[in-house]
Amino acid sequence: MITFDSAFDIVLSYVKPLTAEVVDLYSALGRVLAEPIVSDMDMPPFDKSAVDGYACRKSDMANLLEVLEVIAAGQVPTKNIGENQCTKIMTGAMLPVGADCVLMVEDTEQVGCKHIKYKSTSVKNNICLLGEDVREKDVVITPGVVIQPQHIAVFAALGYAQVKVFRKPVVAILSTGDELVEPSQKPGVGQIRNSNGHQLVAQVIRAGGIPNYMGIVEDTERATFDAIKKALESSDILLLTGGVSMGDFDFVPSVLIRCGVELLFDSVAVQPGKPTTFGKTDQGKLVFGLPGNPVSSFTQFELLVRPAMHSMMGGLAKLSVEKRTLAVDYHRKRTDRLAFIPIVLTESGEVNLAEYHGSAHIFSLPNAHGIMAVPLGVSDLKKGDKVDVRSI
Amino acid sequence: MITFDSAFDIVLSYVKPLTAEVVDLYSALGRVLAEPIVSDMDMPPFDKSAVDGYACRKSDMANLLEVLEVIAAGQVPTKNIGENQCTKIMTGAMLPVGADCVLMVEDTEQVGCKHIKYKSTSVKNNICLLGEDVREKDVVITPGVVIQPQHIAVFAALGYAQVKVFRKPVVAILSTGDELVEPSQKPGVGQIRNSNGHQLVAQVIRAGGIPNYMGIVEDTERATFDAIKKALESSDILLLTGGVSMGDFDFVPSVLIRCGVELLFDSVAVQPGKPTTFGKTDQGKLVFGLPGNPVSSFTQFELLVRPAMHSMMGGLAKLSVEKRTLAVDYHRKRTDRLAFIPIVLTESGEVNLAEYHGSAHIFSLPNAHGIMAVPLGVSDLKKGDKVDVRSI
Repeated sequence: MITFDSAFDIVLSYVKPLTAEVVDLYSALGRVLAEPIVSDMDMPPFDKSAVDGYACRKSDMANLLEVLEVIAAGQVPTKNIGENQCTKIMTGAMLPVGADCVLMVEDTEQVGCKHIKYKSTSVKNNICLLGEDVREKDVVITPGVVIQPQHIAVFAALGYAQVKVFRKPVVAILSTGDELVEPSQKPGVGQIRNSNGHQLVAQVIRAGGIPNYMGIVEDTERATFDAIKKALESSDILLLTGGVSMGDFDFVPSVLIRCGVELLFDSVAVQPGKPTTFGKTDQGKLVFGLPGNPVSSFTQFELLVRPAMHSMMGGLAKLSVEKRTLAVDYHRKRTDRLAFIPIVLTESGEVNLAEYHGSAHIFSLPNAHGIMAVPLGVSDLKKGDKVDVRSI
Repeated sequence: MITFDSAFDIVLSYVKPLTAEVVDLYSALGRVLAEPIVSDMDMPPFDKSAVDGYACRKSDMANLLEVLEVIAAGQVPTKNIGENQCTKIMTGAMLPVGADCVLMVEDTEQVGCKHIKYKSTSVKNNICLLGEDVREKDVVITPGVVIQPQHIAVFAALGYAQVKVFRKPVVAILSTGDELVEPSQKPGVGQIRNSNGHQLVAQVIRAGGIPNYMGIVEDTERATFDAIKKALESSDILLLTGGVSMGDFDFVPSVLIRCGVELLFDSVAVQPGKPTTFGKTDQGKLVFGLPGNPVSSFTQFELLVRPAMHSMMGGLAKLSVEKRTLAVDYHRKRTDRLAFIPIVLTESGEVNLAEYHGSAHIFSLPNAHGIMAVPLGVSDLKKGDKVDVRSI
């Protein structure tokens, strides 16, 4: 049994970055950027008005001003501003030569049909200066970020109609266990429906991968061998669910070895998820044997598989962890594993325990906001203690 | 000018729920559930072992136990447990009649080939009891939740191969402004690329809607009228970007009225985003005129449009707000608007200000973690104050 941190480091040490591909802007949403985004121009590209108003010389702002012309956004001024002159200008439009401020239209009054007068004493310039945000050739966004709408705005502004992102990892999911039937079937005596496999498919999608659900494999060495071989051929990562605890029918590890998988650990000091198994092939494919209990499988996917996927895609490996305040006391007997406990947040963001009957309790997670870490060797946490919480 | 809270309430009061549709499990991911999920069986459906081990009578656990048979998960026990007898049983398998506990395999030793002995003193049952998690006909998940992988697991476990979710709203996006060119074009003098429109498309996708990008409309009343008419015919929501501040060329409001839109507000005491406009048609379609500056447009989408979309889909309307501690002092001069300021979080989750040159500063948001609310009438916030932060 190795510590969770060792397991994490081993997994990450075998991650190989995926290749990149070019996609259109909207397909890039939620994916990891694989190229630096470089500005092809100064931004703003010209001195522009920040408001709707009248562009003039600051020294004239107290005077009656003659209106020379009206400049819409996108139009180019045709007249320079001289003493006691101004040009009506829209938000985003180019400042005429000679002007050094824009008077907000709300703060002016019309005098006759050709003049205006400023009513305020504010001396704000209301000008966005050429290049004040970004200079040509500046790197504006670096590779590795997960692309959100606010990045799309920058890509569009800088002329990127397509961007380079990391390829999505293909993740095969193979469920083992003769007690499993698919959701559309009514379980017979002693059977249960396959929830883990479908949960993993959804986790793969949420983590940005392409799932390849291979169904429930018959509990024989031959069928398992064939299914694993096939899965490894067509995927970057293989997830096996069930079949890696200490049961008599758990021949999966030996089959993995026959399939060319080097097993690197098969037991982690973590709860839930102790029998989590990890290996890799000579081709750099990663294989995870996840526990059969749904909460264990869910948790180990989030803690180990998702970071590996993100790392392959050039993103940050670790789930973000937040320090939060515990709202209740917590106690456990055995302290030989790092534990992750489903929690709910109070309105003020403090941590309460979620209803949780153990790692088979599939109904716990849908009502939980996150999981709280209880470190190795720690039996008691007190109300008011700071704890590490991961969103789920 | 109305308060932001009033604007929010007006928008939400005109939301009509969308119809529901049935989709497969994976397509349901990230969407809002539109039916109660009811259990068709007790869960667990039988007393089952929580571990790999030996099922026996608790009163016999100190004795030498005869092993009657081996039960894999999915198999049905054929022999009842009597005095000093046990059955080897795998995790998830059905408990044989007569047994009231399972001894963990790690805590036992083989004695000869037909008997085992318990080495531990732990008296845990290691049994998941029939129905301890859920009873048949229990409502397990209620409508309105955003579907995550942990919900998919429950759907699968309870026999749902498809679920009912709310239809995605179709959101038309129309950009106005003669200064705009598309990302693939190099802007001429006085022009800028259309970043807002594409940012809105991405925001619509992220919020769970179906975007319908209608391009940049020519700055004439005729073209604007035609484009708005067409957009309203094929969408649940219409977003206009640009064209609603006080500029001379901003005839959009009057065109909206001619298109049958009842305007309900056109100015909100919020910063950025004061000229945000909202209206609705007799058919219940919602129209938002968003400001032309990209930070304003982004923010008002998140604060007003996204809640409306979520509410249409039966989900929670408000963005989740977190109380966080300010790490620096904050000061502003004018206090007549509720302000939203881009912020970055420190490692410990405290709030720092992001670099932010104002609502045209498109490069601010990609580096920000969220936006912080500065209430109406408040000019100063002090280091250590609790502030409301929304993720972006």
